[in-house]
Amino acid sequence: MYRTKTCGELRLADAGQTVTISGWVQRIRKMGGMTFVDIRDRYGITQVVFNNEVDAALCEEANHLGREFVVQITGKVAERYAKNPEMPTGDIEIEAQTLTVLNRSEVPPFTIEDESDGGDDIRMKYRYLDLRRPCVRANIELRHRMTMEVRRYLDSKGFLEIETPMLVGSTPEGARDFVVPSRMNPGQFYALPQSPQTLKQLLMVSGMDRYFQIVKCFRDEDLRADRQPEFTQIDCEMSFVNQDDIINLFEGMAKHLFKELRGVELTEPFIRMPWADAMRLYGSDKPDLRFGMTFVELMDVLKGHGFSVFDNAAYIGGICATGAANYTRKQLDQLTDFVKRPQIGAKGMVYARVEADGNVKSSVDKFYTQETLQELKKAMNARPGDLILILSGDDVMKTRKQLCELRLEMGRQLGLRDKNKFACLWVVDFPMFEWSDEEQRLMAMHHPFTHPKDEDIPLLDTDPAAVRADAYDMVVNGVEVGGGSIRIHDSELQAKMFEILGFTPEKAQEQFGFLMNAFKYGAPPHGGLAYGLDRWVSLFAGLDSIRDCIAFPKNNSGRDVMLDAPAALDQKQLDELNLAIDIRDKE
Amino acid sequence: MYRTKTCGELRLADAGQTVTISGWVQRIRKMGGMTFVDIRDRYGITQVVFNNEVDAALCEEANHLGREFVVQITGKVAERYAKNPEMPTGDIEIEAQTLTVLNRSEVPPFTIEDESDGGDDIRMKYRYLDLRRPCVRANIELRHRMTMEVRRYLDSKGFLEIETPMLVGSTPEGARDFVVPSRMNPGQFYALPQSPQTLKQLLMVSGMDRYFQIVKCFRDEDLRADRQPEFTQIDCEMSFVNQDDIINLFEGMAKHLFKELRGVELTEPFIRMPWADAMRLYGSDKPDLRFGMTFVELMDVLKGHGFSVFDNAAYIGGICATGAANYTRKQLDQLTDFVKRPQIGAKGMVYARVEADGNVKSSVDKFYTQETLQELKKAMNARPGDLILILSGDDVMKTRKQLCELRLEMGRQLGLRDKNKFACLWVVDFPMFEWSDEEQRLMAMHHPFTHPKDEDIPLLDTDPAAVRADAYDMVVNGVEVGGGSIRIHDSELQAKMFEILGFTPEKAQEQFGFLMNAFKYGAPPHGGLAYGLDRWVSLFAGLDSIRDCIAFPKNNSGRDVMLDAPAALDQKQLDELNLAIDIRDKE
Repeated sequence: MYRTKTCGELRLADAGQTVTISGWVQRIRKMGGMTFVDIRDRYGITQVVFNNEVDAALCEEANHLGREFVVQITGKVAERYAKNPEMPTGDIEIEAQTLTVLNRSEVPPFTIEDESDGGDDIRMKYRYLDLRRPCVRANIELRHRMTMEVRRYLDSKGFLEIETPMLVGSTPEGARDFVVPSRMNPGQFYALPQSPQTLKQLLMVSGMDRYFQIVKCFRDEDLRADRQPEFTQIDCEMSFVNQDDIINLFEGMAKHLFKELRGVELTEPFIRMPWADAMRLYGSDKPDLRFGMTFVELMDVLKGHGFSVFDNAAYIGGICATGAANYTRKQLDQLTDFVKRPQIGAKGMVYARVEADGNVKSSVDKFYTQETLQELKKAMNARPGDLILILSGDDVMKTRKQLCELRLEMGRQLGLRDKNKFACLWVVDFPMFEWSDEEQRLMAMHHPFTHPKDEDIPLLDTDPAAVRADAYDMVVNGVEVGGGSIRIHDSELQAKMFEILGFTPEKAQEQFGFLMNAFKYGAPPHGGLAYGLDRWVSLFAGLDSIRDCIAFPKNNSGRDVMLDAPAALDQKQLDELNLAIDIRDKE
Repeated sequence: MYRTKTCGELRLADAGQTVTISGWVQRIRKMGGMTFVDIRDRYGITQVVFNNEVDAALCEEANHLGREFVVQITGKVAERYAKNPEMPTGDIEIEAQTLTVLNRSEVPPFTIEDESDGGDDIRMKYRYLDLRRPCVRANIELRHRMTMEVRRYLDSKGFLEIETPMLVGSTPEGARDFVVPSRMNPGQFYALPQSPQTLKQLLMVSGMDRYFQIVKCFRDEDLRADRQPEFTQIDCEMSFVNQDDIINLFEGMAKHLFKELRGVELTEPFIRMPWADAMRLYGSDKPDLRFGMTFVELMDVLKGHGFSVFDNAAYIGGICATGAANYTRKQLDQLTDFVKRPQIGAKGMVYARVEADGNVKSSVDKFYTQETLQELKKAMNARPGDLILILSGDDVMKTRKQLCELRLEMGRQLGLRDKNKFACLWVVDFPMFEWSDEEQRLMAMHHPFTHPKDEDIPLLDTDPAAVRADAYDMVVNGVEVGGGSIRIHDSELQAKMFEILGFTPEKAQEQFGFLMNAFKYGAPPHGGLAYGLDRWVSLFAGLDSIRDCIAFPKNNSGRDVMLDAPAALDQKQLDELNLAIDIRDKE
């Protein structure tokens, strides 16, 4: 028996008990004839006191402990003289009677505290030490609680968790696959699943009715801060349902999670915003609704006054930043620089201040009369003290996206994006297709199995680009936390869809034959949704990167620097797999 | 709204209600002017009746339904004239008012019933139809309930489920890895984990204290009926524990699962049998304790009587089959053939019957006096009507294994291996090492991180082959359902272990450096266990193969015949991965 109590559970009521604890040495302080050692485990920190007058030898041993030594201590729980109200165990200490060093530790390469002195690289290399920091451990604990709650909720709704295989077939459509050479089938490869999409649809064909799985998915894409080559999805599918059924159920789940994990009661139904509105009002299919600052289209107001930038624009849009009229010239210049950054790409920015007397002062005053500027003020619903920011461009979508970035930046600057406030919505009525310049064809915006809205089916023949889909995303604070769609279960409609997407029947059969064949044997109406687990946990934990809620993440080169993976293989392994390395110069 | 009720929930008390159900057409029967259609969904089967006199057109539609059509039916719940007590819904039927065909079905390639006419191959190709069979679906449902219960139990004991990566480093020790080429790191490969063994030990170093994960593991081995290239493990690890702590906790979990999933209350503590006893009494490290028939060593009794087979043997052992003295000559010949099969490899079998009068008649009577045979009877504790079966050989272990196979076969023939009876035990005190003829060195029986028993540590220097480990397996009905060990947390002991295993310090560092480095920073005492989920579910479901409890299993060539995976890659994919296929003739 290594311990009778953890380091997190002792309270004043335990005073007088003899207990044994085990854990890591967090801190050692000497004061007078006493040595105080804080012992840490997953559950908390407990102060142990060694008294030189009571047992000089034991106290001397304690003086030789080092940070992160693993120790076992037996002693008597006593009330502290100097209580620490910040710590749950702050009312007590343990008067040590025995001390056993279970293991020694070298001096760790960074401090094991929430505010560590270790940089990102060293903390990743020693991730096992990084995980000792309470703030990192809390993310891992939250992740556990989240998956427990998700499973409890879905189980109570009749969902079955069904494991789908990790070694599946490669599908050229979609993102790039990670592949796995098969030794038993020379020259052939498995792929790791990008998602269990087709398999969960097969489970609906098989009558499983309600499926879910918390499952690893893989995409071999170039990485960014919020992307990992492997990520975890809460994957769900239901039969005999329409879009409302799915939205209601998963909105219920989201509310349940908010309540259980964050103590936030969301009583109102989530807004359901058509995709077209989201683009028009926020320039984004994942608008951050924690604040307003919606777009106002200003073509009627500002076009045709001789300001050639606006006169030649296909889109002019503004946002009104409440109370920001006091922005300095320097701040406004910085905003202009912000929107002109290559990743945003605006050509410039126009601003207009509403002054205390109601007059409007703009950066393009020479082109506009005060009367027009008052019209602008009215259109923007701006008041004295507000700042109007305007972007324009010759591509409506691109300009809206630029204005979206500007809106988010202003929200940030004005403190409107509080991590403890949550604004949830559904974006619905996504377009069925989007045009690919690269492929010179329509592509499925969601995937080729997405059901078009019933009322738009006639448009498939006449105006496919206008067809909307029964697809929906859940968005929280500007982050897409999940999305899904109703699937096509009718073979003829599916065939038409492939035709519009430019698949020959042969190619469709080759790539998705197993699914299309399955649909011949009584596929039920069905649909589903996948939540991104990493994103949900990050959201609840208030993290900037999903990496911080993953026990062993990979860096931006897809490397695990702790394990030093990937690495070269032995020649014997390559031979068994019938593979040769063939690194060519790529241009 | 596709349905107001499922096909499994209507009872007599619902009579009079108007309801809507959706599901698959299981069966159509015409009787008089009525058409009876059984509708099936995941939850059950409900009978729908179409009355030609009430609505001739609707009845005609029903007559044109086919097997596995997906339909939606609205009607009134009515009490049945001919009740079916076999079915939960057998008291009622639905008098159809509307019928909608949601989808048609081609005639399925086999019958969708528990007793299907489809062979293994066709059922695997159309696995989505196979999964519609209630007996297959029941396995998937059981698997879901099992994982829910495991999580509930471990969560209540303070375990955190922590996801470890799927893309890790390849370790040459152990089974063959599946590997994943890295596009971003040309010429380098990830490996898929054979188990999260080292990662869970790192989580203990990180202070996570109690970890578990229900996780896919991968081994690229040649397949047998009960092996899959990907399988699922309930993987657990705990800190500050000894072997008893772990055994007690996971025995508690096993009992909880038996109770919740099988309604079996196991009140007695599981037997803890030293490995040496298991080998001596059952010739197996996973003895089936549903029946006795333990081995009796017969060297003293039978050696030195002129029967050269026994006189030259290093081991002679017998089992006593109660009441089997009536075995015919033909049955005994078949048993002899059984033990002489190449996969068992015995040279022959000796038998002795105890007759009603207490006399013993053996197949080697000419070498033994009745007096010696009476000694045999006494040694075997045999009674009139019993059959004694004896094997011998020049290799103790091999002969015991042969006798083990004979014992299991006799248990089967005598009906002693009841699938509804469960005999659980722990096999403990495994040897630390086993000799490898191939590698001409000691190998770790469990893995190189297994802790030797404290009292055997001195033997590491003098007689390493005699060292026993703090390792344990849980065995149920002759199946190893899980196993684990206490791990070494002391760097010096670990270094000695690698030395005995023939690793140079450099090789140990190269292969396990990340773990050995981690152990320098305060590794706590820890140990763990992994349960095989597939085996547990098979056991509870009474299946012969783990394949039947896996939604989409692979065949013996590692192929998913439904998905037709693995398959060749596009040249473009190979180029991106810097790989070339290089299939050479292998001898």
